[in-house]
Amino acid sequence: MERLYAGIITIGDELLIGQVADTNSAWMAKELNKEGIWVRERLAVGDFREDIRNALDWMSYEVQIVLITGGLGPTADDITKDVLNEYFGGRLVVDRQTEEQIIYIFEKVLHRPLLERNLQQAEVPDNCTVLHNKRGTAPGMWFERNGKVYVSMPGVPHEMMGMMKELVLPALRSRFSMPAILHRTLLTAGIGESFLAEQIHDIEAALPDHIRLAYLPNYGMVRIRLTGTGPSRERLEIEMSNEFEKLKSRVSQWLVSDEDLSIQEALGMLLLSEGKTIGTAESCTGGYIAHLITSVPGSSRYYKGSVVSYSNDIKQQLLQVSPEILQQYGAVSAETVEQMAKSALTLLQTDFVVVTSGIMGPEGGSEEKPVGTAWIAVGDSGSVLSRKYFFRFDRLRNIELTSVSALNQLREFMQT
Amino acid sequence: MERLYAGIITIGDELLIGQVADTNSAWMAKELNKEGIWVRERLAVGDFREDIRNALDWMSYEVQIVLITGGLGPTADDITKDVLNEYFGGRLVVDRQTEEQIIYIFEKVLHRPLLERNLQQAEVPDNCTVLHNKRGTAPGMWFERNGKVYVSMPGVPHEMMGMMKELVLPALRSRFSMPAILHRTLLTAGIGESFLAEQIHDIEAALPDHIRLAYLPNYGMVRIRLTGTGPSRERLEIEMSNEFEKLKSRVSQWLVSDEDLSIQEALGMLLLSEGKTIGTAESCTGGYIAHLITSVPGSSRYYKGSVVSYSNDIKQQLLQVSPEILQQYGAVSAETVEQMAKSALTLLQTDFVVVTSGIMGPEGGSEEKPVGTAWIAVGDSGSVLSRKYFFRFDRLRNIELTSVSALNQLREFMQT
Repeated sequence: MERLYAGIITIGDELLIGQVADTNSAWMAKELNKEGIWVRERLAVGDFREDIRNALDWMSYEVQIVLITGGLGPTADDITKDVLNEYFGGRLVVDRQTEEQIIYIFEKVLHRPLLERNLQQAEVPDNCTVLHNKRGTAPGMWFERNGKVYVSMPGVPHEMMGMMKELVLPALRSRFSMPAILHRTLLTAGIGESFLAEQIHDIEAALPDHIRLAYLPNYGMVRIRLTGTGPSRERLEIEMSNEFEKLKSRVSQWLVSDEDLSIQEALGMLLLSEGKTIGTAESCTGGYIAHLITSVPGSSRYYKGSVVSYSNDIKQQLLQVSPEILQQYGAVSAETVEQMAKSALTLLQTDFVVVTSGIMGPEGGSEEKPVGTAWIAVGDSGSVLSRKYFFRFDRLRNIELTSVSALNQLREFMQT
Repeated sequence: MERLYAGIITIGDELLIGQVADTNSAWMAKELNKEGIWVRERLAVGDFREDIRNALDWMSYEVQIVLITGGLGPTADDITKDVLNEYFGGRLVVDRQTEEQIIYIFEKVLHRPLLERNLQQAEVPDNCTVLHNKRGTAPGMWFERNGKVYVSMPGVPHEMMGMMKELVLPALRSRFSMPAILHRTLLTAGIGESFLAEQIHDIEAALPDHIRLAYLPNYGMVRIRLTGTGPSRERLEIEMSNEFEKLKSRVSQWLVSDEDLSIQEALGMLLLSEGKTIGTAESCTGGYIAHLITSVPGSSRYYKGSVVSYSNDIKQQLLQVSPEILQQYGAVSAETVEQMAKSALTLLQTDFVVVTSGIMGPEGGSEEKPVGTAWIAVGDSGSVLSRKYFFRFDRLRNIELTSVSALNQLREFMQT
């Protein structure tokens, strides 16, 4: 079976001046992959007629399915619909169902006056299939030409996501016969990409052509991902499992998870399986560890809460770090994080705690404790373990790395 | 002066299966824009020879400057260097400075055995200018052909960022004469995109050709951005200011900031200017508000800390929400958030507090309080104001929207 290729075009100047990160196309790529559609390219262009037309020409040459988001809003910089209408040689006509939806949204949901420019969103090319948008005012459009499919969707993420799941993916399933595509991922910690590659190079070299291996280093952890394609899902699953198990047993020493999990998901599963609870006391990470933990659905089953002690006042009053410790060792010290950990265990009444204190930058560093220095303590009622880290990045990345390292330090603590 | 166009190619399968979001190219686009270089397109392709070659051909046709990241690692799936070497007809030779850097990193930083595949990273095409990487093992490469520039950089964000700032941008500045490009942004809240467009349509229609206007709705706020280009920066600054001031006075009623600020930055500036402090007590947002506030450098001058009371135990013990209130009204209620606010003011000793409690999903909703229901309280020693919200998205977006709405609710509270 021929591999089925898709391309994603995102339209909007904001993507090209770096004002907005493109999260839509990552989500779309993930969904298409699950269906067995191989995303060959992602292209972002601005709100310019010529560039949108060029992008359509280019994608027509490269792939069978072109998914387009953005540029469907009611304002003058939104030109996607006009360009598509012209490109496919259509004529704009009013879609009654969309018109009703727009009137409904303005009258019943937004309680705002309906403007002419809003009603114009109900106009669609007469040679497309309209994809009705239950969540907003801009309809989607499905065009076909020379056996290729072009789908235009709004750029508002939840509108696009709803339309993809309810209309576009089902329609693609019935329009094309899909090959199977499978991904399996191992998450490792404590080993570098090259050294890992050395450990498994014989397995990698012996992989069949239709199974590829990739290394994805991130936050001091490395993911190993296998991607396979083939006509039969059942057969592919067996082949993938064989290769995956070989890799898994080879890297067992560094294995965090044999699923594509984040460290907060892996830690959450560990806590759930042991029936334990966790709390946090954060200084330099300022609530980010709490956020990572609570971003996992169901985390209320093991997460109780946090004291974010950003100021020394809070460290003293809520977490009983004595003025003497702060004076003698400073807020960024083993003594401070260990005291924070002991107090947090009592205050939050959890089985485990994770504690951070550091200097994330760009200001606040000294010769002795430069920007990027962080102390992390983890512990339970039996013992508290603190460790010093040094990260050399910008503020946000230092916060992220400190947070991920803290969660991983607890995972190690629990597993040894 | 001709407009100077750049294109960005990001290479790596992980970008096409949605496993990793592409943050590099947004950052690169922002930096290029500051220099007066117009990013015309961003293209992501997988680790395939043909696709990388096609991408280079396509970009050669579209732009003068092609920036490439990714695929320079030491593992078998990294083929960018080979493809570029072949594309530009070079021959691989060892770069001694890179070789020394690799040996240094493995011996002194990583304390790991140096492998043959790591040393191969020191090989570079003999027809490129090598860009030495102070932060990692993969060197950058600068090629020129037919008056166009192609720069390949590592995909690890901080390595790429350092190389861009220290080597690539300075080299582009001396290689090309840049037109001026300026952006000015207004942040508004409490008005929809279409209605805003209606308010300013005469100003928008009268803009000269070299100044464009765009609407960027996000989190219930709308940014209006002006982008201008021209040969003279001085003249463009005057023209832009004129248009900007017209817009600013027209939308004054909804204006949050006349800079391109996030709500946490705008609120931080307001707190600093009034010399006030802020604390948070978060249930459903689980530390995300604390994270937003502390992601701003210097926020320790006004932010003291948070109690993340994810469980009802913590609400009762640390924030004195009585069992009766929890029983009668529930954790997601005006009564609960108002009590949390009063307790947090005392506990954290701040001038203002922001408090949240809600149901972010996917579980935990009921008919009376469906997923997406959130109560937000803000207040000071004089009064506490609570308000109910309803967000209809997925867990993470509900958390983000609740957090941004909470910060905005405090901004309104402070300004009225």
